[in-house]
Amino acid sequence: MIQRLKGTRDFSPEEMSKRRRLESILREISLRYGFREIQTPVIESSELFVLKSGPGILEEMYVFKDKGGREIALRPELTAPIIRFFVNELSNYPLPLKVFCISPVFRYEEPQSGRYREFVQYDVETIGAETPEADAELLILASDICSKAGLKNIRIRIGHVGIIREKLDEAGVPAERQSEFLHLMDRKKQDEASKFLTDLGIARDVADSIVGVCQISGGAGVLDSLKGERADYMKKVISILKSSGNRFFQVDMGVVRGLDYYTGVVFEIDAPDLGAEKQICGGGSYSLSRLFGGTYVPSTGFAFGFDRLLIAMEKAGWKAEKEHIDAFVLAVSAGESGKMMEIAAMLRDNGIITEADLMGRNISKGLKYAAARNASFAVIVGSKEMAAGKVTLRNMKSGKQVETETSLLPELIKKGGK
Amino acid sequence: MIQRLKGTRDFSPEEMSKRRRLESILREISLRYGFREIQTPVIESSELFVLKSGPGILEEMYVFKDKGGREIALRPELTAPIIRFFVNELSNYPLPLKVFCISPVFRYEEPQSGRYREFVQYDVETIGAETPEADAELLILASDICSKAGLKNIRIRIGHVGIIREKLDEAGVPAERQSEFLHLMDRKKQDEASKFLTDLGIARDVADSIVGVCQISGGAGVLDSLKGERADYMKKVISILKSSGNRFFQVDMGVVRGLDYYTGVVFEIDAPDLGAEKQICGGGSYSLSRLFGGTYVPSTGFAFGFDRLLIAMEKAGWKAEKEHIDAFVLAVSAGESGKMMEIAAMLRDNGIITEADLMGRNISKGLKYAAARNASFAVIVGSKEMAAGKVTLRNMKSGKQVETETSLLPELIKKGGK
Repeated sequence: MIQRLKGTRDFSPEEMSKRRRLESILREISLRYGFREIQTPVIESSELFVLKSGPGILEEMYVFKDKGGREIALRPELTAPIIRFFVNELSNYPLPLKVFCISPVFRYEEPQSGRYREFVQYDVETIGAETPEADAELLILASDICSKAGLKNIRIRIGHVGIIREKLDEAGVPAERQSEFLHLMDRKKQDEASKFLTDLGIARDVADSIVGVCQISGGAGVLDSLKGERADYMKKVISILKSSGNRFFQVDMGVVRGLDYYTGVVFEIDAPDLGAEKQICGGGSYSLSRLFGGTYVPSTGFAFGFDRLLIAMEKAGWKAEKEHIDAFVLAVSAGESGKMMEIAAMLRDNGIITEADLMGRNISKGLKYAAARNASFAVIVGSKEMAAGKVTLRNMKSGKQVETETSLLPELIKKGGK
Repeated sequence: MIQRLKGTRDFSPEEMSKRRRLESILREISLRYGFREIQTPVIESSELFVLKSGPGILEEMYVFKDKGGREIALRPELTAPIIRFFVNELSNYPLPLKVFCISPVFRYEEPQSGRYREFVQYDVETIGAETPEADAELLILASDICSKAGLKNIRIRIGHVGIIREKLDEAGVPAERQSEFLHLMDRKKQDEASKFLTDLGIARDVADSIVGVCQISGGAGVLDSLKGERADYMKKVISILKSSGNRFFQVDMGVVRGLDYYTGVVFEIDAPDLGAEKQICGGGSYSLSRLFGGTYVPSTGFAFGFDRLLIAMEKAGWKAEKEHIDAFVLAVSAGESGKMMEIAAMLRDNGIITEADLMGRNISKGLKYAAARNASFAVIVGSKEMAAGKVTLRNMKSGKQVETETSLLPELIKKGGK
């Protein structure tokens, strides 16, 4: 047997109906906030991702040379392609350009529970705005999505990597070494982070105070000790969130994200019910457009892991509707199969979800199939009834059968399905 | 500037909204026929496609070795992955298993007008039925899709490759040489096809009669000259189609499809308005499950080229709705931006598509942006009005402005948007 590749998945009808339902929720909410759907290709030049994330990304991607010798990558994320698209073709749109995308991405890493090599991201970007309102709007949208998804137990932790970088600048940490410190903080290695600073010749108390800023967390009040333009920006974001009445937000200056390109407000959303793989969303403000050959355009965005969000929803008690059909039409004998197909077509024209028997089944087997498909009604087409312009309509739940004119079927089925 | 790869496309908000609209149409109709959506991965073992289509397919696919040395392909079509999925995991479902899939596929070929390296297929398969009803249902579905898509000028040409193979068997053409004949007929090279047969030692009149069968085309009556089980099957399919009242169907025994795995009824749909790339759909009955390690399961299916269908719809006059938002909320000065965000949130909670000003624009620039976004209303939040619990509501079409209580906004906007 040919198997699917490790780390990839097939989705059954039941799974797909759940996935499409979540996709509709995400699309509807995004559109309601004025975000507009776009799409970029699955394959891109690998250079695009190296520019954004450094050559280390090559180890984590599916990369290959095509027959023309081009270095191609299966995209590992959606932000870089979206900004490439913006720089190439969308830069004449009025700003901010608010967009979203729900698409498959690929990572070449060891598959484990909740981690796949091919998975879906829901990505949202506000391109061209650098205001507390833009950051706050994204955070409110992310929180709204969690609410609409039925998640009751999440944490939205918000930091500001610009404030930390400013402290590092003041202490004299060279720009090109700052990421090392941030990566240590991202992995919660405070002692190593502090040692990293003192090893650079920074005074112990200064190092401690920088690490201390990263440890600030709690309600809006914890920001009082921070001064300056960036701190005021952060306070404004938190104040807008506070007046939105949302309970999920908390300040956590330790959120610095693992990636170098973030510049300002950054955030992560955890669904603690998920255990080790609890982070369902991450994002923040950045600028990539200049790197890709455009002018400077500040942006802010986030990505949800679609699969983790789905798992979190199911843990929170969300259930998809059971698959069903409205009517199953079957013929008593081969002579009525033409009529059976006609009736099925007529029911479908009336918006009724209908299957016809394609296997020449007898009535007993046909009714068994109808039950397996969770049909509300079976329509039985026999020659005797047909001669009188009638068919038998069977309510699959009650088992009651009536003879009826064919033309009355749509009404009876619509009424009875309620 | 980093460019997207040759043969791939980015889709703008305007384009995506059309594509999602077509996707909804396809999904809704498929579900109404009792087809169920499934999904398979973008990446598969290249072996899967070689088994189905022969080693020649390697030239036309994106293939590469992953870091574990596995031979990987970006799927060039959806039928093989769907049948692999069926054999691996779905074979316990009651038959027929009727499924569909709307997904990206990849071909490594020279891009040209209407042909891309990454494109979308809408694929439908009825797995486990080998009856005229099953073939007819698919043909009626395909025709229904064209109608719902507004196409008025299409041709559905239906053949039966099993009838031709039977004639070749009777003439003594070895099974392994029959494909060569069919490929010639597929490319309408009747003279070469005839010569191919006589070169094999087949009498001129027998060769002519086989080529003659391939040239049968027209209404149901043209099948009268054909005898046997397969011919009766084909006649039954055509008779069901005829009673469905559809005008698009025609018999064309010259439709033999380019691929070896078809066994029975085969068909192609042309939209002649599209010129050279006029074929929008192709399909037929086949069996692949045994090849992939399962038991023998007859299937029948088709695939539409999503992009060509979209182009055909637009040529037929289909227009997507213009993008719009219901309300654009802006603050007269920075002091009201918190209130502006609150009002935007309240409107969104009421199902109103709302953007807030994220750029700190003045009123004149804000209204210009609102017009560019095709907003029905602008909501202007000023400190004086705010003190009285009011805001200004501007109808963007008429330019009329009223002062109103904030709480009345949802009703006024919903009414006025009609």
